[in-house]
Parts: sequence; C-alpha cells; structure tokens
Amino acid sequence: MRIAVYPGSFDPITKGHIDILERSSKLFDVMVVAVVHNVNKQGLFTLEERVQMIRECTGHLPNLEIDYFSGLLVDYISRKGATAIVRGLRTVSDFEYELHMAMMNHQLLPEVDTVFIMSNSKYFFVSSSLVREAALLGADVSDMVPPNVAVRLKAKWEERRQERGPLR
Amino acid sequence: MRIAVYPGSFDPITKGHIDILERSSKLFDVMVVAVVHNVNKQGLFTLEERVQMIRECTGHLPNLEIDYFSGLLVDYISRKGATAIVRGLRTVSDFEYELHMAMMNHQLLPEVDTVFIMSNSKYFFVSSSLVREAALLGADVSDMVPPNVAVRLKAKWEERRQERGPLR
Amino acid sequence: MRIAVYPGSFDPITKGHIDILERSSKLFDVMVVAVVHNVNKQGLFTLEERVQMIRECTGHLPNLEIDYFSGLLVDYISRKGATAIVRGLRTVSDFEYELHMAMMNHQLLPEVDTVFIMSNSKYFFVSSSLVREAALLGADVSDMVPPNVAVRLKAKWEERRQERGPLR
Amino acid sequence: MRIAVYPGSFDPITKGHIDILERSSKLFDVMVVAVVHNVNKQGLFTLEERVQMIRECTGHLPNLEIDYFSGLLVDYISRKGATAIVRGLRTVSDFEYELHMAMMNHQLLPEVDTVFIMSNSKYFFVSSSLVREAALLGADVSDMVPPNVAVRLKAKWEERRQERGPLR
Amino acid sequence: MRIAVYPGSFDPITKGHIDILERSSKLFDVMVVAVVHNVNKQGLFTLEERVQMIRECTGHLPNLEIDYFSGLLVDYISRKGATAIVRGLRTVSDFEYELHMAMMNHQLLPEVDTVFIMSNSKYFFVSSSLVREAALLGADVSDMVPPNVAVRLKAKWEERRQERGPLR
Amino acid sequence: MRIAVYPGSFDPITKGHIDILERSSKLFDVMVVAVVHNVNKQGLFTLEERVQMIRECTGHLPNLEIDYFSGLLVDYISRKGATAIVRGLRTVSDFEYELHMAMMNHQLLPEVDTVFIMSNSKYFFVSSSLVREAALLGADVSDMVPPNVAVRLKAKWEERRQERGPLR
Repeated sequence: MRIAVYPGSFDPITKGHIDILERSSKLFDVMVVAVVHNVNKQGLFTLEERVQMIRECTGHLPNLEIDYFSGLLVDYISRKGATAIVRGLRTVSDFEYELHMAMMNHQLLPEVDTVFIMSNSKYFFVSSSLVREAALLGADVSDMVPPNVAVRLKAKWEERRQERGPLR
Repeated sequence: MRIAVYPGSFDPITKGHIDILERSSKLFDVMVVAVVHNVNKQGLFTLEERVQMIRECTGHLPNLEIDYFSGLLVDYISRKGATAIVRGLRTVSDFEYELHMAMMNHQLLPEVDTVFIMSNSKYFFVSSSLVREAALLGADVSDMVPPNVAVRLKAKWEERRQERGPLR
Repeated sequence: MRIAVYPGSFDPITKGHIDILERSSKLFDVMVVAVVHNVNKQGLFTLEERVQMIRECTGHLPNLEIDYFSGLLVDYISRKGATAIVRGLRTVSDFEYELHMAMMNHQLLPEVDTVFIMSNSKYFFVSSSLVREAALLGADVSDMVPPNVAVRLKAKWEERRQERGPLR
Repeated sequence: MRIAVYPGSFDPITKGHIDILERSSKLFDVMVVAVVHNVNKQGLFTLEERVQMIRECTGHLPNLEIDYFSGLLVDYISRKGATAIVRGLRTVSDFEYELHMAMMNHQLLPEVDTVFIMSNSKYFFVSSSLVREAALLGADVSDMVPPNVAVRLKAKWEERRQERGPLR
Repeated sequence: MRIAVYPGSFDPITKGHIDILERSSKLFDVMVVAVVHNVNKQGLFTLEERVQMIRECTGHLPNLEIDYFSGLLVDYISRKGATAIVRGLRTVSDFEYELHMAMMNHQLLPEVDTVFIMSNSKYFFVSSSLVREAALLGADVSDMVPPNVAVRLKAKWEERRQERGPLR
Repeated sequence: MRIAVYPGSFDPITKGHIDILERSSKLFDVMVVAVVHNVNKQGLFTLEERVQMIRECTGHLPNLEIDYFSGLLVDYISRKGATAIVRGLRTVSDFEYELHMAMMNHQLLPEVDTVFIMSNSKYFFVSSSLVREAALLGADVSDMVPPNVAVRLKAKWEERRQERGPLR
C-alpha cells in the first residue's frame, strides 16, 4: 500500500490545493493531507478551523485522510509509514525553496521522496497568502477558494471591519 | 495497476537519470522508460544504442519497461494506458519549460498528470548535454555516467580524434 | 496621438497574442502589429501567411494596423512615429531576455519605452513554438490558436505526413 | 481620457521610481501616484512624509496626481476611473510576484490591465528597502534618491545615532 | 597584500560556509571572516557564540582572521584595507539579492569588488536558516554542520524542549 | 604567484568584458584572457580577429596575457598552472548554466575554483550576441563596445549590406 503525505499550512485551503489533491490522490492508495501546526506562527484560522474547512470540501475524494502534525516532517512521515511527500509547484521561488527542502528531507530520511505536481493554469496565481490579503481587504475571492472557505473569509472581514469602526 | 512513463532523449543516460528511475519506480507498478525518437534531430548515439545503454544499466530495477516512441507524447501515453508522466527537475530554466509542457499535456489529455522528481544533489549539475560536451573534449566523465556509458563515450572520443588527425 | 508597436514572429499568432492585443489596443490610439521579417531564419509559415492569419482573426479590434518590417526595430519605430513597444511576458527566461532588449532599445532610441503586458493565465503556457511542435505531431491545438490558424496548422501536418509516407 | 495608477509604498521614493514616472506619464493622460496606506505595517516615513517627498521631487511632471489609499487596489482603481495599473520591474522575484498580483487584479476587475515598465539600468539595483537599510547605517545614498529624500534620510540617521548613544 | 572579507550572519556556520572558506582563502593573502552584528535582529546564537564556533572549526586555515562588525559593510571594508568581498552563491533568489548588493557596494566604494564562489554541490541545499529550523525540530544535522556546531544545536533543542514541557 | 583564466568566445569583446577584466586583474598576479576556439561553431569574427581586438583595447592592463585554446577548459587550466577561472555573471539563466559548469569543472579538477564577478550595472544588458545582432542590423553600438570593435562591426555591416544589394 502506497501512502503519500501532502503537508502544508492550508490557511486556508484554496481551489489550487484541491486541484493538486484531485490529481495526486489518483497516484497513491492513501493520501494524507497534513496541516502543519507551527506553535510559533499564528495563522488567520486556527488549526481546528483549517482541518474543518479541508474536511468540508474534500468529501468527493475517498482515499483522503485529514490530519495535522507538529515537529519534523520526516518524523511524521515515518510514523505514518508513507513513502512520498506531495508538493505543488507554481513559481520559480517556490521551486528553489522546495528543491532545497526536498534535498534536506531526502538526506534526513533517504527512503522518502518528494513528488511535485503542478496545479491547473487556472489556479496558477492563487496562493493562500494572496487570498487572505485580498479577502481581508474586502475582495470577492469565490473564484479562488471553495464556497465554505469563501463564507468564512467573508465573516473574518466583517469581524475586522467592525473592530476597526466605521471610518475605513 | 498504475503505469507511468519517463520520456526523454537519454543521449546518453546519466547517473542523474538512473537516480530518478530508482526513486520513481517505487511509486508505480510499471515504469516505462520511453526514448523519444525525433526524426529531425540527430543525436550523438542512435536510438538503438540509447535503448541498449539503458537496458545495460537498469537491470536492478524489476518493474522497468524500456521502449521508444515518435509522435505526440500524449498519444503514446494513451496507447500505454499510463496515468502519469515522470520528469526530473534540476534548474529554474528546466522548471519553466517543464511547467509549460505539463500544462499543455494536461490540456491535450486531462486524465494524465506530470509528476516531478528531483535528483540527488550529487547529480544536480549532470545533464546529457554537459556530459556529451565534456566527453567529446576528452574529459573523464565516469563520475557522471554508468560504466557502460563511459566506455562508449570514450570510444566516440577516440573515433573523432582519429578523424580529426594528430594536430589537435 | 499615441502609437504603439507590437513586434513579433507570430509564426503563427496564438490566442495568447490576441489576448495581449485586446488588452493593449485599449491603451493606445493606434496599435501596429509588426511581423519581424528575418531573412536568415525560415519559419513554418511565410511572412505573407503570418500577416494574413493575423488579419483574419483581429477584425474586432478597430485601431489595429498590421504590418511587417526587417532591419532594426528602433528604426522601424522611428519611421512609424511610435512612442511605445508592447511586449507580452510569460516566463522568467522571457523576462530576462526582454529586460535586456528593452534596455538596449532604450539606449538606442531614448524616446521610446517598452511596455509589458501579461497574458491571461489561461494562455500562460501557450507559445508559438510549443503550438508548432504539438501541431506538427498531430495534436489538436484549437484551444490555443484561433480557428483560422488551427485549420492551417492541420493542413501543414497532413502535408508533412504525406511526404513522410505511411509508416509513421 | 486614459487614467493610470502607479501604486506603491514609496518609503521613500527613489530615482528608480522617478524614472518609471517620467517614462509612464507620457503614455497616459493622467498618472496617479497612489501611496498605499497599510495600517498593519509601520514604515520608516509616515504617509504624510511620503506624499510630501513625492510632491517635492515630481513638479516637472505636469499630468501627475499624488494621492493615497487604503483597502483593495482594484476598488481604488474603480473609484478613480482608471484603466491601467503601472508597475516597475527589476528582478525575477519581483516579476513572479507582480505576475501573480496582475493575474489576481485582472480576475477581480477584468476591465483593468497592468502595464510593466522597466527602469533605467542605472537604477536597476535601487530599491526603497536597500536604500533605507544603507542610509540608516550611514551610507551616502544621494546617487539613488532625489536631494530632498537624501536630506530626510540623513536626518533619520542622525536621530537614531543620538538615541543609540556615542558607542556605535 | 590582498585582503578579502567574507561577511555573514553565520548563525550558525555550516559545512557550506567552511567549503567557501577553504576555496576562497587560497585566493587571498588574508581572509577576514566578519560576523555581522545586527542590533535589531536577534539570532539563535549570540555574537560571541557565533565567533567562537567559527574559531573552533577553522583552525586548519592559516590565513583566516575572525572578526565582527556593525554598521555599513563598505565602511568596515575600508577600515580593514580590503579589496574584495567574498560571497557564496547557491540559488537564483540569492543571486539577485547579491547582485543588487554588489552593485550598491560598488557604487558606495568603487575600489572594492565582490567575488562570488559557488559551494560544493554536496552542500548546495544547506543554509543556516534551514539548519536552524530542522535542528530545533529535533533533526540530526551533523551532515550539514561541523561537529562543534552540531553539539550546540542539540543543546538548544534540549533546552527548548524542556521549556515547552513533556506534552509535545 | 596566482594565475587566473578568463575564458570566453569574445565574439567580439564588449565594454562589459573589459569591466570584468579591470576588476578581476587586480585580484590576481597574472590574468589570462583565453579565447575558446570551437572548431564546430563559426563565429562572426575569426579567432585571430578576436584575439587582435582584445589586444587592441586592453593595453592599460599590465598583468594580462592574451591566449586561445581548444579542447577541455580544465586541461588548459592545468597546463597554465592557474588556480582560478573568472566568469562574469549577468542573468539568472547565465547563473544556472555557470553554476553547473563550475560544479562540473570542480569535479574534473578539484584544485581549481570558479570566481564570479558582476559587471557594472551600466553594462548589465550588454552581451556579445545582442551586440552582434544589433550591429548587423545597422545599430550604433559604440556605447557597448570599445572603439576598435565598433569600427570592425560597422565594416561587417557594410560588407553584408553590399552583398545583399540595395533593396533592403
């Protein structure tokens, strides 16, 4: 049985991530979506919210397991018995960072390999950080994220606007 | 059964290619190494020689099938019943070309995906074209190619030196 | 009156080029599409065919002038009385080459500036060379080029297939 | 009437920015320099100081309007009735970020396009952040910024040196 | 006498840095390793620890001088009477940043030049930041740093684990 | 005595090359400019012309030796007793190719290192190929090449124009 792990912050999950999952889940028997729990970095959404949002929009993919982890990725991979890490690739800057991470992870755990999948050109420019930035300034991002995420981003924006008061 | 195709010119196969094959062949049930037969572009080695060299140095990988094709890659993929294309990634320029090819192939045949694997950092700088160039100038490239290929490259060099005469 | 020149090989024109033209023609009073006539480099289509294909698929853009030139781009720009060069940008490698060309052209003719427009993400991977390569191997490229170009590419493929004979 | 917006932090304006403005202001009837007011990110200079510095050094460009905005760029563009966003391009990393922003802005507001202009090779290495970093360490940056900005950067440095005391 | 300066954060020194030093120290009469003391940015190790770690692992290089500085690099270079800055190059993003820094430093101090050395492909993916990140999550990084640094990184990790308590 | 080799096609030498030579010749005792004699690739100028043009415009650099070679660079380096290869860096694409060449040369001859120097931002966009292309179309390239080279490029252009006849 071939198990792969797709790690990420997913803060929040985008249509680009879902596209990667739809493609890569066909290549493996079990596909683990693993949300990184970084204790030093606060996200827009909590760990629980991120996991919940992934669950809500990936019901059509039967061989998915949704999980989270903290600590070293290769340790998590070992515990899961996985043989592959799945990553999306969009830009040259991504590419170099990912290349170095893949080389380091291969050095730390030689029996695991990183497999890169490119997302659909439609989602080429979509990243969680651009989506967060745009949504918190009031943009309609429903072309870039699934409906359940769009609703939550809108709520975050309303919340922030109320805190800030009527003047801006 | 998951079948993947690793297409390329393999003129000649290098240790970098073998590294990619050793990694990717664990991810699929059948891994087809497919030498591209480009009628318009003459290589250093003939199609038969390239296939033969691959055969000689990949005997340790049981689920490999060695083949060649001409025409459109996605047509070949369809005929083989494969669901994935495997490609190595080394440089940013590779990356962009490969990204565009992957997007085009996905548009031409949506049910196939391209999977990128990075080679070991040891073979990071090794490409068939650099190897050819160095070997034909007399360099010892036995750290970069398997022994059977090193022997053939040396023979090519000797041959060319004789044609050229003693003066250079 | 602001005149801009969009130079290129257009061998053949793609949907990506048309997208750039639709965007940039709104920014200028006259938009000259200028096919480069390179005497040293034979294309797939003749100069006349390229001009003709552009004419056929850009009738909806009223302020377009379709022309061709040989020699130095900045000389042509001067003759036309243009103040801007329009170029599309897709990749990092494009970017660097275009940056150097823009710097050189600005040095040769300081009163002209190069203006870069990015094409729609849908056409991000579409280039004339990829389209030619795919079409001549038999691919259906009608998503990437306008219908009049698709027809001509198909004809080229048929022609080549007949020359080559039945075996491949 | 063609209106374009050149948005940025301008913290502070550099000779590179002025070069872009001198080139792009010829292409449009009105050129709006729009300082982004980011409530979450404190700059070296206040919003008022940045606007003031731009005003002081762009008096020679008659069709310039100097403004600031907060919130979503495409909303500001709509309110202004602009049809183009102007951006400078210097590096590959800029290029990819800008490409993604341009794609997103086009998706949010299809009737607006982003137009990229390259700065003079003389200012190729000049960025606000490098200028700030160097000036606050005591460098003479008068080749990189207009005189009014050089004076204010020098004052900032003196101020910080006094706070820090005589030892460093 | 030719003096060169190799500036950096060295937080901590890696095998990649040592490789650059071994190569570049042959090119100059005196090679100054200069740790940047950035008062605004707290590192993992103190300035004293970084200097100490460099001293411990570079005893085999006779013409090395280990030092630190704050303020502007070109001022430090002048005080030292050096004529070259040595920098390692690994990635495209490094490359562009370094290119701009080199251009700026050359503008600030025309008699100094920046000399770039590439590290061994074995250490291609090794950076201080990746090493810190991995080590603090418990990874064994002894292939990437000298033994004295590995010991200190392990101690840092133990320390942090104890602070955090037994639950994670 | 430290000897370095600056290899290249120099077809023709540009102001960018001269800038690199002026900088790097201060770092070494002897600087060998080595024109690559590629028997398979015809240049615009003959080997003799290239050597001659370099000689004419580098008289102000006393520790220069001008030479040419064919075959493998590292063999030439060995024969010369050099310890460093000097290369200029301008673009990301250069950078990656040069990185791979440096890694390969280091593998073939471990005692030699490649040292990269960046050219002045003024010459950033100047390459021999762009200069050739522009000059043969009639551009005035005297800002990019030394006067002796400008004269010869002009002569080449006149020659070609005469061959081609009056019509273009």
